[in-house]
Amino acid sequence: MTGFYGAIEAGGTRFVCALGALGNGPARVKVETVIATTTPEETIENVMTFFHEHHSSETSEALQAIGIASFGPLDLDRNSEQFGQIIATPKPGWSGVDIVGKLQRAFKVPVVIDTDVNGAALAEHRWGGARDLSDFVYLTIGTGIGAGIMVNGSLIHGLNHCEWGHIRVPHSLEADPFAGCCPFHGDCLEGLASGTAIEARWGKPAVTCPSDHPAWQLEAQYLAFAVHNLVCTLFPQKVILGGGIMEQKQLFPLIRTSLIKSLGGYFNHFLGNITIDNYIVPPALGRKSGLYGAFCLAQSGCRMK
Amino acid sequence: MTGFYGAIEAGGTRFVCALGALGNGPARVKVETVIATTTPEETIENVMTFFHEHHSSETSEALQAIGIASFGPLDLDRNSEQFGQIIATPKPGWSGVDIVGKLQRAFKVPVVIDTDVNGAALAEHRWGGARDLSDFVYLTIGTGIGAGIMVNGSLIHGLNHCEWGHIRVPHSLEADPFAGCCPFHGDCLEGLASGTAIEARWGKPAVTCPSDHPAWQLEAQYLAFAVHNLVCTLFPQKVILGGGIMEQKQLFPLIRTSLIKSLGGYFNHFLGNITIDNYIVPPALGRKSGLYGAFCLAQSGCRMK
Repeated sequence: MTGFYGAIEAGGTRFVCALGALGNGPARVKVETVIATTTPEETIENVMTFFHEHHSSETSEALQAIGIASFGPLDLDRNSEQFGQIIATPKPGWSGVDIVGKLQRAFKVPVVIDTDVNGAALAEHRWGGARDLSDFVYLTIGTGIGAGIMVNGSLIHGLNHCEWGHIRVPHSLEADPFAGCCPFHGDCLEGLASGTAIEARWGKPAVTCPSDHPAWQLEAQYLAFAVHNLVCTLFPQKVILGGGIMEQKQLFPLIRTSLIKSLGGYFNHFLGNITIDNYIVPPALGRKSGLYGAFCLAQSGCRMK
Repeated sequence: MTGFYGAIEAGGTRFVCALGALGNGPARVKVETVIATTTPEETIENVMTFFHEHHSSETSEALQAIGIASFGPLDLDRNSEQFGQIIATPKPGWSGVDIVGKLQRAFKVPVVIDTDVNGAALAEHRWGGARDLSDFVYLTIGTGIGAGIMVNGSLIHGLNHCEWGHIRVPHSLEADPFAGCCPFHGDCLEGLASGTAIEARWGKPAVTCPSDHPAWQLEAQYLAFAVHNLVCTLFPQKVILGGGIMEQKQLFPLIRTSLIKSLGGYFNHFLGNITIDNYIVPPALGRKSGLYGAFCLAQSGCRMK
């Protein structure tokens, strides 16, 4: 399917916006810009100005649709009055903001929103390391923790998008006296292993911890427990680990070793020829997964017309 | 779809076999028998004798297919040489037994095998408490722990069926010094909360613990943590809790209360009108879920022809 699409990777600190065509390879992005996330009014105004100005200058083709891979939580229940809105976010002013409706009214094209991690999963499925897979997970470990989960070729939505970061994992207070920083659950996975948690536990930003700092072994242990639970629940064909914290490449071998130990050989028969190095991997699209995911969402909106 | 089908609920201690037609209601079972699980040779011989004798006496209609809802683990990878076989079970003599092949050769009809919990999930979806749902889980808490998980209207299979019972959950050795009884993982969910674990922890069978025994509050806590993780991962529309341990009806209110506390209000916006009493429920088909599930599997085999 060809055509010209708009894409927004909507984050708590910045919105990345792009226009581009969709080909067989990753989206051919024509223009791309970064807009600071301030008030909803100002931010959305800046997004609309970008699309208005650059769409007409770049192509005579009509804009087909806009996709938004967004921070959340989002209300994705089509029967809800708040469908498409950001819900109960701690980000001041953003709860209940109807970005989808505003863009639809302004551009008169389908606007599709989903979580940033669901977008990233779609992009990895189409152009990245999950091509030809029907069952895989894309995890993001950053300021928060989230997952985009594909089962039988479709994203999991259930009653709403998943909030995997909030699963409970073993936490030995003896080995790790940190109580956890999740305002809802204390020591859920996000409360123990997000970038926010690492900074709160060690008193400095994760990025300033050297690669042999004990923070990373502990981090790998929690992430291995969490991936263990995904394996037992979904038995995915691949686990993609992205996000700012996973740019600490020393984590990958630590997680793999901890995961093998945690699984205790239980799944070996079924892994067949899959090696652990090919099972636990970084995103093939790197930091572009989210933005490319917004293009995937845009195109799905076009199919919905 | 009408026709005459065979169904086997294959368990570690007994095989329940039935023949029946499939209507709009639950399977109209014509004959049903229970066969003790002994050696594979003897057990399968007895199963085949039952189908041979009773099929011809009950109907002139041709047998369409046989479904097996089985204990496991099973190899469900169609590309595997061991497809359809029971794999690495601790049950003596049953590892690598090709019950599907034997029945296919004997009856010359499609034979479809899946886990007992996947079968039960199919039956609850068709005739029980999960009608009209696309995303739900059927959990069994008995000698072992397992889950049949439906996402977007299809069962999760991934690389193989799930082994949800082996997820890791928080375990405070201070509150519960029992080390767990899973031979692979020690204190995974099955190692802490299966009937086997309850008996090992308290020194007597679960069924002999009175309803106000502290075993049940502890059990409810572990199951609430486990359901918490399912909610965060899949956000199912309903959670059905079956199996022998869940016949202790006092567990349901204890689990509901512990779950609400564990989730910390995080999902309230999205639960809408769903009450906790309608969210955490026993199987509508009671103990029949597994056998009826085998009928669902048989019919799916017929569609595959």
